[in-house]
Amino acid sequence: MTTTATTLKGEPLDKAQLESMLRRRMFYTPSFEIYGGVAGLYDYGPPGCALQANIIDIWRKHFVLEEDMLEVDCTVLTPHDVLKTSGHVDKFADWMCKDPKNGEIMRADHFVEDILESRLRADKEARGEKVEEKEEDPKKKKKKAKALEAAKLDDATVKEYEEVLAQIDNYNGEQLGELIKKYDLRNPATGVQPNPPVSFNLMFQTSIGPSSNFPGYLRPETAQGQFLNFAKLLEFNTGQMPFASASIGKSYRNEISPRGGLLRVREFLMAEIEHFVDPESGKKHHRFHEVEDIELDLLDRHTQLSGKTTTTRMKIGDAVRQGIVDNETLGYFLARIHLFLKKIGIDQKKIRFRQHMANEMAHYACDCWDAELLTSSGWVECVGCADRSAYDLSVHAKKTGAPLVVRQRLDEPKVIEEWAVEIDKKKFGPFFKKDGKVVEAAILATSQEERGRLAKELEENGKAVINVPGVGDGQVEFSKDLVSIKWQKRVENIREYIPNVIEPSFGIGRILYSLIEHNYWTRASEGGDEARGVLSFPPAVAPTKVLIVPLSSNKDFTPTVRKLSQKLRSIGISSRVDDSSASIGKRYARNDELGTPFGVTVDFQTLKDGTVTLRERDSMRQVRADEEKIIEAIRALVDGTKTWKDIEAELPLFEGQELDVPVR
Amino acid sequence: MTTTATTLKGEPLDKAQLESMLRRRMFYTPSFEIYGGVAGLYDYGPPGCALQANIIDIWRKHFVLEEDMLEVDCTVLTPHDVLKTSGHVDKFADWMCKDPKNGEIMRADHFVEDILESRLRADKEARGEKVEEKEEDPKKKKKKAKALEAAKLDDATVKEYEEVLAQIDNYNGEQLGELIKKYDLRNPATGVQPNPPVSFNLMFQTSIGPSSNFPGYLRPETAQGQFLNFAKLLEFNTGQMPFASASIGKSYRNEISPRGGLLRVREFLMAEIEHFVDPESGKKHHRFHEVEDIELDLLDRHTQLSGKTTTTRMKIGDAVRQGIVDNETLGYFLARIHLFLKKIGIDQKKIRFRQHMANEMAHYACDCWDAELLTSSGWVECVGCADRSAYDLSVHAKKTGAPLVVRQRLDEPKVIEEWAVEIDKKKFGPFFKKDGKVVEAAILATSQEERGRLAKELEENGKAVINVPGVGDGQVEFSKDLVSIKWQKRVENIREYIPNVIEPSFGIGRILYSLIEHNYWTRASEGGDEARGVLSFPPAVAPTKVLIVPLSSNKDFTPTVRKLSQKLRSIGISSRVDDSSASIGKRYARNDELGTPFGVTVDFQTLKDGTVTLRERDSMRQVRADEEKIIEAIRALVDGTKTWKDIEAELPLFEGQELDVPVR
Repeated sequence: MTTTATTLKGEPLDKAQLESMLRRRMFYTPSFEIYGGVAGLYDYGPPGCALQANIIDIWRKHFVLEEDMLEVDCTVLTPHDVLKTSGHVDKFADWMCKDPKNGEIMRADHFVEDILESRLRADKEARGEKVEEKEEDPKKKKKKAKALEAAKLDDATVKEYEEVLAQIDNYNGEQLGELIKKYDLRNPATGVQPNPPVSFNLMFQTSIGPSSNFPGYLRPETAQGQFLNFAKLLEFNTGQMPFASASIGKSYRNEISPRGGLLRVREFLMAEIEHFVDPESGKKHHRFHEVEDIELDLLDRHTQLSGKTTTTRMKIGDAVRQGIVDNETLGYFLARIHLFLKKIGIDQKKIRFRQHMANEMAHYACDCWDAELLTSSGWVECVGCADRSAYDLSVHAKKTGAPLVVRQRLDEPKVIEEWAVEIDKKKFGPFFKKDGKVVEAAILATSQEERGRLAKELEENGKAVINVPGVGDGQVEFSKDLVSIKWQKRVENIREYIPNVIEPSFGIGRILYSLIEHNYWTRASEGGDEARGVLSFPPAVAPTKVLIVPLSSNKDFTPTVRKLSQKLRSIGISSRVDDSSASIGKRYARNDELGTPFGVTVDFQTLKDGTVTLRERDSMRQVRADEEKIIEAIRALVDGTKTWKDIEAELPLFEGQELDVPVR
Repeated sequence: MTTTATTLKGEPLDKAQLESMLRRRMFYTPSFEIYGGVAGLYDYGPPGCALQANIIDIWRKHFVLEEDMLEVDCTVLTPHDVLKTSGHVDKFADWMCKDPKNGEIMRADHFVEDILESRLRADKEARGEKVEEKEEDPKKKKKKAKALEAAKLDDATVKEYEEVLAQIDNYNGEQLGELIKKYDLRNPATGVQPNPPVSFNLMFQTSIGPSSNFPGYLRPETAQGQFLNFAKLLEFNTGQMPFASASIGKSYRNEISPRGGLLRVREFLMAEIEHFVDPESGKKHHRFHEVEDIELDLLDRHTQLSGKTTTTRMKIGDAVRQGIVDNETLGYFLARIHLFLKKIGIDQKKIRFRQHMANEMAHYACDCWDAELLTSSGWVECVGCADRSAYDLSVHAKKTGAPLVVRQRLDEPKVIEEWAVEIDKKKFGPFFKKDGKVVEAAILATSQEERGRLAKELEENGKAVINVPGVGDGQVEFSKDLVSIKWQKRVENIREYIPNVIEPSFGIGRILYSLIEHNYWTRASEGGDEARGVLSFPPAVAPTKVLIVPLSSNKDFTPTVRKLSQKLRSIGISSRVDDSSASIGKRYARNDELGTPFGVTVDFQTLKDGTVTLRERDSMRQVRADEEKIIEAIRALVDGTKTWKDIEAELPLFEGQELDVPVR
């Protein structure tokens, strides 16, 4: 999708200029650059690192502390069996195809998308229509230039291409291969068709321990660690439901050919919540009333099916009542996600919540809404909010036999008639030896229907056969002296259930990048030379809160500068001193680029009467007062109890110029 | 080394009891336990996770903010070339040996150590001396039990074994193999000698991208990412030296057979500082005077060489003046490390600083002191403080040609006569093609001595040969029309140097575990049943600061409880509500185990007059006052401006009992 990105002030965003600034100010930088770099890996420099830490800090307060979530920190290294059970070994993959001539490996869907898009652009060109440039890496631009030499398509083909592109996420490998053949899609670099797509698992594999027969992966999400600890977390929560766990940590995805800067990387920080809820509770949420009047821009499944992308602005309470959002818990989290994004400074006009199409959801999800943020790369999925149902807990419980369940005391006992299994452990264990546990789990996991069948077999033949993958040939026989299956009546005082999971999952790097774009703008410098960048981060997320600038390198300023930074540190406010020889104006300009909201200047007046000036980044206006008052003002501005307007009303304005010439 | 660990109160520490408590309270738990677990991998539950976050928070304030360090966040995935250059591919390894009978793989030094120690213990037993039990995993205990059946050794053998054990860290694989043969060391499990030791690299290997020809590793330390970004960080710091970068993140070490709980794990959180300093500055530190009177317990190299382990208590200023600690910067950081450990609540009597022996240092270090903490596993290295000299920056610069240097303007220009290299780029590039950059780097990296030799060769033969590993057969010839080397005089206005690096490196998991042991003690419960655990964490690191306990589940208490937790949250203090049906005493006991320093009880009196009680964990004493005053007291206690004694002097004591019976 082609979009025209805008700055905070609504003007066109010059991405090259922004990227050059981010690089110069070391927000982030390609990892291992002096070794030629590695695609999809980035290091955060000091401002990026601080910005990330502040986003995480707010996230933790907004979600974990506010809702008494149980935060855990699980390992990244994950053994093969766990991710086999969760489905990632089999299903967490993309389709890749290889150019047989130059060996280039490409993601198949991206390849099809790129060629069809370039043909459509060439067609527009031929029709004399205006072609909007999408932001790309230079390499790709070159390819496109070639393709652009092609000419006009007939109207039916244009329509067909557009339909393919609209559902590009829905094709499997075979279908992508057919598209490549059907439309004769060739790699512009070599002029040949790539080989048929093959599946490529996106997990990084490694080997744990010295024996090389214990394969493991770097986790693709933090979720599995939380699921595996479910029973312990429930106990920690003294058995009370519902509750949520949360985790902040790195996850990994071995992208085939990453591009798009921080938006598609191989190593990334995630913050994930697993909210465990009784499926029979209707997924009500006891704090839903607090958020029900919050308005969100929703793009539901039906609208997308009809080929539209227009959002509907609607109270989340109404959306749940009308069944657009399935349940209160899902709705509650959508609203809370919205509030979080607002708090850190995401542009309200650039958020939408988009529901996943049925065929686009991850293998574990039964419903999913993404918070998407509008950037120069179009709408980008930054937070997923999925209802994973009981999928994960069920498969792990089935595989391991661990009771990942909630046991709830019933107010009224229930009488149940059913097929009951009884295992003679004394004989069963010795008979099946090392397979005993797995076979037992398989027998206990049988449905009522299967048990009926097995009971009949046992009665008729004295033995029965059950399917146990991984044991022998998968068919396991047992006799009636090991296992008996009888129709029984029993009274239940306890209800046992596997909870459902609502999972809000945050890609911190994507949010961080979007936040930068949303807060970026430029203003003409006083000297009249080229426009200067400003990052208008809210104080709470700004990497540094205060810049302290002595007018010159005069030693007399040092004690005041030191005292100021010490005082700010003691009240937990990060500051930096810039005592370089650049002019005051230049030093402030540098810090506007870093997003530092406030600046304090120490000058000769300070030495006389102890007053300093306080400058606000966005308006460039200044007030002047004694140190104590200025520090108090900064504290109030940073913790949000006062605005700059309040401060201007309280303290005298200072009309001194931002000097653009060196002053010593 | 066998030690008898003690609790905070100086009593013998019952490790089994402590571990059972940590497990029950979910401080940490073996990862993937329902899948059988993986050695050396642990998940942190809610209290462990909060404890870790608080330690990190204090670390960041104490080091990064206090000293204006440049924090970066670099990727864990690291390409092979980087770690080849740094020396880790070749040297970051342990010796392992395999039992040919049962295939068991063991760390060779641990194997030798275990068998010799068990023989010495068996000897002591035979001599009727008291044998101190070292804390072990149960598996090892079983092995030892077997070995203990052996009998008395002659005095010379005892001495020999003790000498071997004293320098067990200094043997290489071959030597370990000789010891196994010489002393006929057999695996107790099978009764056979293991195979000769082989080297096992401790890095987890993986493959980056889809092509499988781009090997990478999980970083073994965060340091390399900081070194590779040196030039950018120096620029960010506007060229000023000295400065430090810092990084907090996971690192990995594929231990051969990890044991010892959190003390030896495969995935761990590190916090590392790289302080870059001019080697010609004498490594002075401008804030050294602030710490010079701080006293540390030092165990230097010479003392250890003489076979002793007695520490000397000494002011760090004196230690630097006497040359025991090499320089001010190293000394400054030792003192700052000490202050950090004190701040988080490490027992002052259980810290020592031990200097590395020459042969024990990592391949990059030229001097190193460890902060060791005394635990039930003996003295454990928790912080390393190494002088890595210019090693890393030099090797990366040499390999990549990147200028990882500082350029300093000289006050007085310097006249230098020397061999100067001139390369004719127009001819040189086309001649060497793709190898050009590497060959050029090799020529420019030559010493003055080598240049003299090359100049002579060029003059005599018109060509010369230089050693360039990796290009052709490693011998590269060049002629005098490509390169000229002349004796020249030049004036230098700029001094260019590669900085040295002082690296304080913190193992957060080890610190966290030691902190738990140091703050653990037990007290008799009022009911007289078994002693109850208490973790007396300082408020700043305690996982939760306040427990809020309504006297019963009476609904009338709910508004007050909610208001209290909201108010505490708004001033940034984490609290938890326990409204379970357990008695007040039981609920407080549970939270003593979690290390929660303060408790607030809401009772019927609260409904009448708005007062609540505040309980202090360690003394179990309580005061009573209105909510506002209690919240103010908590704020002062948590930020450290007041002690419990101050609060007792201000607010009326409350003499109510901690009820141990259910109250509803």
